[in-house]
Amino acid sequence: MKFSINAKDGKARCGTLKTDHGTINTPAFMPVGTQGSIKSIDTDEVKSLGAEIILSNAYHLYLRPGTETLIQMGGLHKFMNWQGPILVDSGGYQVLSLAEKRKVSEEGVRFQSHLDGSYHMFTPEKVIEIQRAIGADFMMPLDELIGWPAEFKDADEAAERTWRWLKRGMSAFRDSDLLYGHEQILPPIVQGSFYEELRKREAERIAELNTPIIAIGGLAVGEEPQQTRDMIDLVTDILPDEKPRYTMGIGLPHDLVDAIALGVDLFDCVVPTRNGRNATLFTSVGRMNIRNAKYVLDEAPVEDGCPCPLCERHTRAYLHHLFRAREILGLKLASAHNLNFYFRIMKMAQEYIQLGDFHSWAKEFSERTQRRI
Amino acid sequence: MKFSINAKDGKARCGTLKTDHGTINTPAFMPVGTQGSIKSIDTDEVKSLGAEIILSNAYHLYLRPGTETLIQMGGLHKFMNWQGPILVDSGGYQVLSLAEKRKVSEEGVRFQSHLDGSYHMFTPEKVIEIQRAIGADFMMPLDELIGWPAEFKDADEAAERTWRWLKRGMSAFRDSDLLYGHEQILPPIVQGSFYEELRKREAERIAELNTPIIAIGGLAVGEEPQQTRDMIDLVTDILPDEKPRYTMGIGLPHDLVDAIALGVDLFDCVVPTRNGRNATLFTSVGRMNIRNAKYVLDEAPVEDGCPCPLCERHTRAYLHHLFRAREILGLKLASAHNLNFYFRIMKMAQEYIQLGDFHSWAKEFSERTQRRI
Repeated sequence: MKFSINAKDGKARCGTLKTDHGTINTPAFMPVGTQGSIKSIDTDEVKSLGAEIILSNAYHLYLRPGTETLIQMGGLHKFMNWQGPILVDSGGYQVLSLAEKRKVSEEGVRFQSHLDGSYHMFTPEKVIEIQRAIGADFMMPLDELIGWPAEFKDADEAAERTWRWLKRGMSAFRDSDLLYGHEQILPPIVQGSFYEELRKREAERIAELNTPIIAIGGLAVGEEPQQTRDMIDLVTDILPDEKPRYTMGIGLPHDLVDAIALGVDLFDCVVPTRNGRNATLFTSVGRMNIRNAKYVLDEAPVEDGCPCPLCERHTRAYLHHLFRAREILGLKLASAHNLNFYFRIMKMAQEYIQLGDFHSWAKEFSERTQRRI
Repeated sequence: MKFSINAKDGKARCGTLKTDHGTINTPAFMPVGTQGSIKSIDTDEVKSLGAEIILSNAYHLYLRPGTETLIQMGGLHKFMNWQGPILVDSGGYQVLSLAEKRKVSEEGVRFQSHLDGSYHMFTPEKVIEIQRAIGADFMMPLDELIGWPAEFKDADEAAERTWRWLKRGMSAFRDSDLLYGHEQILPPIVQGSFYEELRKREAERIAELNTPIIAIGGLAVGEEPQQTRDMIDLVTDILPDEKPRYTMGIGLPHDLVDAIALGVDLFDCVVPTRNGRNATLFTSVGRMNIRNAKYVLDEAPVEDGCPCPLCERHTRAYLHHLFRAREILGLKLASAHNLNFYFRIMKMAQEYIQLGDFHSWAKEFSERTQRRI
């Protein structure tokens, strides 16, 4: 893996991240395909929409189809027919949000599958083994997430445990083998809730590990936007400039632009696809709920000039009808539009950073896209 | 509209059906988009899969989005962005199968919407008005369907009423105007249940109307395959050779081939999309249920050499996973495969008719495709 910064504008940067599965132009957004499928969209189309890297999820893939199947099928790239890079989340978040019952101990997390109630144990070592089987280009260590608000003591303990688990994960990573020949990277995750002291401590000791990429976790868990920005700002000030930074699970269009302004390079979020399936369409001039009765006779595309498969072919009135009639095609067209919009945000950010005009664009973009239309 | 027969092999024929929205090569299969959407597949893709004409449904479109919306949006072709011809079913079948309550009288059918319980009346005149608003290239008259088995008296009365309704529909058709400039055709429907006497009577008096195309309805309602074939054979012997014949709602791959052998030119059926969404995949060597555990590690495509977006890109194992994981993409890929297979059946039938070798191919194809693999 090789990261090069091509241009900077304040803390914002654009660059390229080279992997064994191709080059990612940063800032980059990763669409989420938790179960080995970007919901409703095939990998050839997600590529043509603008994806350069996708995200999948160890918790889901471990439960179904399972690591044995993935190994026999030659890994996730081959299984889902995606030739680009893949980042796989460790599943720590899903264990907390989806699993029926869970018990966190120093060893790891014991949980019951949300699918069949069976018992499983994720340890820092186990998630490495799973992600070796998946063949992720970027494989995330097991971390202990903490909600918002959190007591200092709880946040401190979770961050300390995350640190101990990281060391165990890195050790298991070093001691395990590649299954498919391509390079795999293990980015550590900066936790620390919304306590400056904890975030500073974690960012500093993680920076010292000298890993090729660093993630910032535990954000977008219910806090105020200013708190998110403060934590990102603090952490990116500490992390080495030459390493790419990835904020996990962020966010709305203006959240992405805010984070780019603070020096973040890589994003993932379910928002474009999940909100798309719930009839929310993001555009350059604000977001709309296409179920709204005002669109019933609206012959305009969702966004004028948008090059996506929805806007190039269909009216708001037709998409409105598809949602009202509960037609699957509506879910797909809305998801495709939103993903394409997210990829276009990344392209615009790259261009404005290169022009040295990112921050005034970002302010104006952020205001525009938060409107409801 | 202009129909030309290019080749014949026994009763089987292939030809071209020219409409104001383009030429259909016959035998032809119409994918079903009841609500103005072929479920999960956009119109550009349905075209690239091989569709030359699609079917939609007056009952569904009347309830949602409604005829006023369709008129304001310039008709269904424009609304759903499909430039090819469209055949619209009158909704008689949906009133019987979907509506909450219904009362058939000489005037027409009074029913409650399955969506909101509101009351509506479909008369022979009303369905013409609806289909003028939709802008169907082929618009079907209101008929009275009868299930299987049916008493002779009931079948006779339903056929007689269908005939009287047809005359009223034709009168309303002549007295109403085109809304969008392109030609619209009203094919009469031969009913008569499974009584030779009734089918003969209906076929004879409908043949005398000298309409440019004729439909055969009331089939595939639970009867034995031999009964279906007997009725088609009887009716196509009576209908004028030079007019295209359309059997409504047929069928499985071998049913299509059987009907082509008896001189049918046009088909529609929900089977390829509905069964696809239920994990049934049709292939040249039989049908499979992709949920079956034996496919979990199967690296072959659903069908070797199939040019569809599923088989060109994905393994049986991946499709199996998508269905097990309830991923929307699975529904779409299975529907696309099945539709493409249906269109390929039509192409093969056309070729074998031209070669004069249709019937031996049809027999062998029918045996092959009825296997479960």
